[in-house]
Amino acid sequence: MDFTLIALATGILSMLVVIYLAWWISREETGTPRMRKIASYIQKGANAFLRRQYKTITFLIVLLAVPIGIFFKLATAFTFIFGALLSLTAAYIGMNVAVRANVRTANAARTSSTKALTLAFRGGAVMGLSVVGLSLIGIGLLHYLFKDPNLIVGFGFGASLAALVAQLGGGIFTKAADIGADLVGKIEASIPEDDPRNPAVIADQVGDNVGDCAGRGSDIFESISVDYVTAMVLGTVLFGAQSVSAAVFPLMIGTIGILATIGGVSVVRGWKNVKPLTSFNIGLLITSFICAVGAFILSMWLLNDITIFFAVLSGLIATLLVGVIVEYYVGIHGTPVRKIAEASERGAALNLLTGLSYALQSPLLPLITIAAVILFSYTITGGFIDPLHGIYGVVAANLGTDMIAGIVMSSDTFGPISDNAEGITEMSGISKETDETLGELDAMGNTTKAYTKAYATTSAVVSTVVVFATYCSIVNLKLVSFLNPFIISGFLLGAALPFLFSSLVIGATGKAAIEMVDEVRRQFNEIPGILEGKAEPDYAQCVDISTKNALKKMILPGLLAIASPIIFGLTFGKYALAGMLIGELASAALLAPFFAYGGGAWDNAKKYIEADRIYRERTVMRAAAVIGDTFGDPLKDVAGPTLNTFIKLSNMTAVLIAPVLLML
Amino acid sequence: MDFTLIALATGILSMLVVIYLAWWISREETGTPRMRKIASYIQKGANAFLRRQYKTITFLIVLLAVPIGIFFKLATAFTFIFGALLSLTAAYIGMNVAVRANVRTANAARTSSTKALTLAFRGGAVMGLSVVGLSLIGIGLLHYLFKDPNLIVGFGFGASLAALVAQLGGGIFTKAADIGADLVGKIEASIPEDDPRNPAVIADQVGDNVGDCAGRGSDIFESISVDYVTAMVLGTVLFGAQSVSAAVFPLMIGTIGILATIGGVSVVRGWKNVKPLTSFNIGLLITSFICAVGAFILSMWLLNDITIFFAVLSGLIATLLVGVIVEYYVGIHGTPVRKIAEASERGAALNLLTGLSYALQSPLLPLITIAAVILFSYTITGGFIDPLHGIYGVVAANLGTDMIAGIVMSSDTFGPISDNAEGITEMSGISKETDETLGELDAMGNTTKAYTKAYATTSAVVSTVVVFATYCSIVNLKLVSFLNPFIISGFLLGAALPFLFSSLVIGATGKAAIEMVDEVRRQFNEIPGILEGKAEPDYAQCVDISTKNALKKMILPGLLAIASPIIFGLTFGKYALAGMLIGELASAALLAPFFAYGGGAWDNAKKYIEADRIYRERTVMRAAAVIGDTFGDPLKDVAGPTLNTFIKLSNMTAVLIAPVLLML
Repeated sequence: MDFTLIALATGILSMLVVIYLAWWISREETGTPRMRKIASYIQKGANAFLRRQYKTITFLIVLLAVPIGIFFKLATAFTFIFGALLSLTAAYIGMNVAVRANVRTANAARTSSTKALTLAFRGGAVMGLSVVGLSLIGIGLLHYLFKDPNLIVGFGFGASLAALVAQLGGGIFTKAADIGADLVGKIEASIPEDDPRNPAVIADQVGDNVGDCAGRGSDIFESISVDYVTAMVLGTVLFGAQSVSAAVFPLMIGTIGILATIGGVSVVRGWKNVKPLTSFNIGLLITSFICAVGAFILSMWLLNDITIFFAVLSGLIATLLVGVIVEYYVGIHGTPVRKIAEASERGAALNLLTGLSYALQSPLLPLITIAAVILFSYTITGGFIDPLHGIYGVVAANLGTDMIAGIVMSSDTFGPISDNAEGITEMSGISKETDETLGELDAMGNTTKAYTKAYATTSAVVSTVVVFATYCSIVNLKLVSFLNPFIISGFLLGAALPFLFSSLVIGATGKAAIEMVDEVRRQFNEIPGILEGKAEPDYAQCVDISTKNALKKMILPGLLAIASPIIFGLTFGKYALAGMLIGELASAALLAPFFAYGGGAWDNAKKYIEADRIYRERTVMRAAAVIGDTFGDPLKDVAGPTLNTFIKLSNMTAVLIAPVLLML
Repeated sequence: MDFTLIALATGILSMLVVIYLAWWISREETGTPRMRKIASYIQKGANAFLRRQYKTITFLIVLLAVPIGIFFKLATAFTFIFGALLSLTAAYIGMNVAVRANVRTANAARTSSTKALTLAFRGGAVMGLSVVGLSLIGIGLLHYLFKDPNLIVGFGFGASLAALVAQLGGGIFTKAADIGADLVGKIEASIPEDDPRNPAVIADQVGDNVGDCAGRGSDIFESISVDYVTAMVLGTVLFGAQSVSAAVFPLMIGTIGILATIGGVSVVRGWKNVKPLTSFNIGLLITSFICAVGAFILSMWLLNDITIFFAVLSGLIATLLVGVIVEYYVGIHGTPVRKIAEASERGAALNLLTGLSYALQSPLLPLITIAAVILFSYTITGGFIDPLHGIYGVVAANLGTDMIAGIVMSSDTFGPISDNAEGITEMSGISKETDETLGELDAMGNTTKAYTKAYATTSAVVSTVVVFATYCSIVNLKLVSFLNPFIISGFLLGAALPFLFSSLVIGATGKAAIEMVDEVRRQFNEIPGILEGKAEPDYAQCVDISTKNALKKMILPGLLAIASPIIFGLTFGKYALAGMLIGELASAALLAPFFAYGGGAWDNAKKYIEADRIYRERTVMRAAAVIGDTFGDPLKDVAGPTLNTFIKLSNMTAVLIAPVLLML
C-alpha cells in the first residue's frame, strides 16, 4: 500500500472541503449597502497589504534560496521556496474567505444567531483545513518525489521563515492600528470601540485579517510542517530512511489529524438552545477522540508498538490540559482577570503590576505539563534502555500535539471573523440588532483563544526540543560538559536573543503606534466636524501608516533568527551553537507564554470591566484597564507568537547548517 | 607568614575606619527642631522595622540550623548561623549611621554644598566598609578556626538566606510606601514628592533606609562572602586544601579590595569647583587602580602566575565596562530615557511599551561582556589544556568583580542618604535653601546607581557559574547529554522558577501597595484639613501597613529558593538538579537585569520630564511618566536585586546538599 498517496489524497480531500465551504459561504447575503461598503474597505485594505507583503517576502525567499542552492543541494533550495510559498498560499486562501465571511456573519446576526455562528466558524474552518491540507500535500508530494527526508528540511525552513516574517508584518500592522485607535479614541476622545469616527478603525479591522488571520495561518502551517519534517529526518537518522517510523508514520498521523478535523468542524454550528461554546467543545472532543483512536490503530498496525500510542496520546492530552490552565490565567471567569480588574480601581500602575505578577507565574504549570510529557514519552517508549527509541517517543508526543491543530486554527480564525462582524455592524449603525448574538460569539472567541495559546506553547516547546535533538543527532553531539566555557558563553548569549528579538518587535510596534496616535490626533484636530460624525475621517492614511511600518520592520528580526546561529556556529563551533540553542529555548519557553498569557489577561480584564454594570461607569478604572490592555496588545499578538517561530527558525537554521559544522 | 591574620587585621582596620567615620558624622549639626523631629520619625520607624524583621529572620535561621546540624556537620550549622547574623549586623551598622547622616546632610546643604557631599558619601562609606570588613573578618576567622573550606559553605549559605529575606522585607516595605505615596499623592491629589501632607511620606523615607540601605547591605555582604567561600571550596577541590590558591589567594584579594576601598573613599568628598560626580569617578578609578596593582603583585608573588592576574583584571574591567553600558540604558542623558520620556506624550501605554522595548534589549551587551570574561579567563589560564586551571581562572575573574564592591556599596548607600536629606528638607519647609546642592547630589546618585546595577549583574552571573561549577565538582558531574529527558525537564522547570519567584515578590508588593493606596485615599477623604496642611496625617498607619506586609510576605519566596533544589534534587537526582540550576541561570541572568535596568530607565524618564521646563507642564505626559516609574519601582528595587540572590541561594543549597546526592 502506498501510504504517501493516501496522505496526498487526504490533503486533497481537505482542499475539496475548503472549496465547498467557500462556495457555501459565498451564497449568503451581504446585508445593507453601508455594510457592503465597509466590508469592501476591509477587503481591499487586507488584499492590498497582503500583496505588498508577499511580494517582499517572496523577494527575500528567492534571495536566500541562492546561497542555499550554492552551499547545499539545489533540491534544498527548491523545497525551501516551495515551503515558503505554500505557507503563504494557505494563509492567503484562509484570509480571502475570512474577509467575505465577516460581513455575511454580521448580516446573519441580524436575524439568526445560529446561522451567524455557523457562518463564522465555517469561515474559520476554511483557514484551518487549508493550512493542514496544504502542509500535508506539500510534504507528501516532496516525499513522493525525493524519497529523502534530508532534502525536505528546506521545506520546513522555508515555512518557518515565511511564517516569522508574515507574522511580524501582520502583527505590527494590526497592533499599531489597534493601539492608535484605542489610545486616542477610547481614552482621549471617549468614543466607543469600532466607532466610524475613529480614523484608525478601518486599519484596525484590516489588521485583524492580515495579522490574526493570515499571520496566524502561516504560523500554524509552520508548526505542523516543521514537526512532520523533523519527525521524518530524525526517524531517518534513528532507524534508516526505509523504516516505517521515518516517513509513513508521521504522514499517517497527519492524515488522521485531517480526517478528525473534518469530522470535528462539521459538528460545530449553531444549534438551538445550545451555547456556542458547548458546540465548539463537542467538536473539539470529537476531533480529539478520533485522533486518539486513529493514533492507536496506526501505532499497532504500522509499528506494532503500543508505547508509541501512549506517547502520541500524552502530547494530545497535554495540549488540552494546558488549554484548561491557560483558560484559568487568561479567561474572563478566572481569579487572575478579576484581580487585575479590581486592581484597576487604584490606577493603571496597579493594574499593570497585578497583571505582571500573574503573567510571570502563568508559564509554570504549562511548562511542568510539557516537562512531564517529555519525561513520560521518553520513559514509556523505553528510552532508558534504548535512547534512540526514547527520542522517537518524544517525536511521537510532538506529533500528538499537532493532531488537533486544524480545529484549533479554525476556532482561532473564527475570532477575527466575528470581531470583524462586530466592527462592521458598529460602523454600519446596526449594532443594536446584532448585539446579543455577536456578544455570545465574542465570548466563545475568548475561550477558543486560550486553546490557540495552549497549542502554541505546547507545540513550540516540544517541537524545539525535537528540532534541537535533530541538530544534536546530525552533528553527532552526544556528551558535553556544562562547564565548557564555549557552551556557557553560547548559553548566556542564546538566552539573551529572545529578549533582543522581543525588544525589536515591541519597539517596532511601539514606534508605529506612536505615528498612529499622532495621525489620529491630527485628524481629530484638523478635520472639522469629524467628532460630530459630520465629516468622514481619512481611513486610508492610517492604513498607510500601518502598511509602511509593517513592511519596513518585519525583515530585521527575521534575519536575526537566521544570522545568529550561522555566525555563532561558524565562529565558535558546534558545541557553542548547542549552548546557544538551549539557552534560547530556556528563555523563549518562558518569555513567549509570559507575553501571550499576560497580554490575554490584560485584554480580558478590560472586557471584564466593560461588562460590569458598576465598574464600567468608573472612568479611572476603565482608563487604567485600557492602558493595561494596550500595553498587553503587542505582547500577546506580536512578541508572544513570533517568539515561538523565532526559536524554531533558529533551530531549523542550525539543522540546515549542521552538515557544514561537521566538516569544520 | 600567616596570611589569614593579615586578612583579619585588614578587616579590623576596616571597622576602625567605620568607627572613625561614624564619630566624624555624629559631631555634625542636625538643623532645625522640625528637621530633628522628622529625622527622629524616620530613625524610629527604621529601627522598629529592622528589629521586628531581624527577629523573624533569626528565628527562621535557627529553625533551619537544626536540620543542617542533624543532616550535615554541627560546625556547618554554626557557620550558617554566623554567616546570617554577621550579614544582618553589617547592614544594621550601615543603616544606623545612614539614618544619622541624612539629617546632617540636609543641614549641611543649607550652607555648604561640598560639606553635604562629603557627609552623605562618608555616611555611605560606613556601609561599604562594614560590609566588606565584616565579611572578611567572618571568613578569615572561620578559616583560622577550622582550616576546612567545606565547613565554611554554611557561612555563605547563611549569608545568602539572610540577604534574600532581608532584601525581600525591605523591598516590599519601601516599594509599597513609594507606590502608595506616588499614585495617590502625585497623580490624584497633585501634590509634590515628599510633601508632608502625604500620609505615606514617612513610610517612604523609612523604606529608603530599610530597603535601599539595610537590604542592599545584606545583598552585597552576600555577594562577596559567597564568592570567597566558593573560591575556597573550589580551590580545595581543584588543588587540595593546603594549596595557596585554595584559601590564601581569595583572602588576600579581599584584603587588597579593602585597602583600595579605604583609599578610594577617602578621596571622594566635596572639592571646590569640582562636580560631585567627578570626585566619585576619581575615587572609583583610584580604587580600581590599587586593586589592579594589588592583584598583579598577589598573582606573581603568591602564585607566580601572571595569567591569574589577567583573569582577575578581566573581572574588574568587566564590572566597569558594564557600568558604562548600564549608564547608557538607564542614565538620564542616554537615548533610551529620552525616547521613553518623549513617548509619554502619547500616554502611559506608549511610555510603557517604549520602556519595555529598551529594557528587553538592555541585558544583551552586559551578558556578552560577561560571556567574554568567562571565555577569556578560562582560555588565558590554559583551560583548554588543563580544565581545572581554567575553572580556577573563572574563579579569579569572579574575585576580580568583587574588588570594587566596597566603593560601589558606599556610593549606593550615598543614594538613600541624599534622598532622605531631600525628603527632610522638603518636609521641614527649607527646601528652597538646599535645592541646588541636593539636586547635584541626586544627579550623582543616579549615576552611581548604574554602577551598583552593573556590579550586581556581573557579580551574580559569574558567581552563579562558579557556584554551579562547585556543585558539578562535588557531585562529580562531568559529561552529560543535552537530550537526557531529566536534564531537559529540570531545565524547563528551572527556567520557570525565576519567573515564579518574580511573580511572588511583585505580587506581594502590588498587594501591599493596593492597601497603601486605599489607606492614603481614606486619610485624604476622612481627615478634614489634611490637604490644606492644617491637620497632620496619620503617618504611623502607613508605616504599619508596610511593616505588616513586608514581614508576612518575605518568607515564602525565600523558602522557594531553598526548597526547590532540595525537593527536585532528592526526587530526580543530580543530573536533573544540574539541569534545573542551569535553566534557572539562563532565565535569571536575563530577567534580573531586565527588571533592574528597565525600572531604572522608567525612573529616570520621569526625572527627565520633571527636569524639562516644557514637558513638566504637560499633565498627561507627567502622569504617564509617573505610571511608568511606579510600574518599574518593584521591578528595579525588589524583583531585580532579589533574583540575583535567589539564584545564588538555589545554587548554594545545591552545593550544601551535594554530598547527600552523591550517596543516592
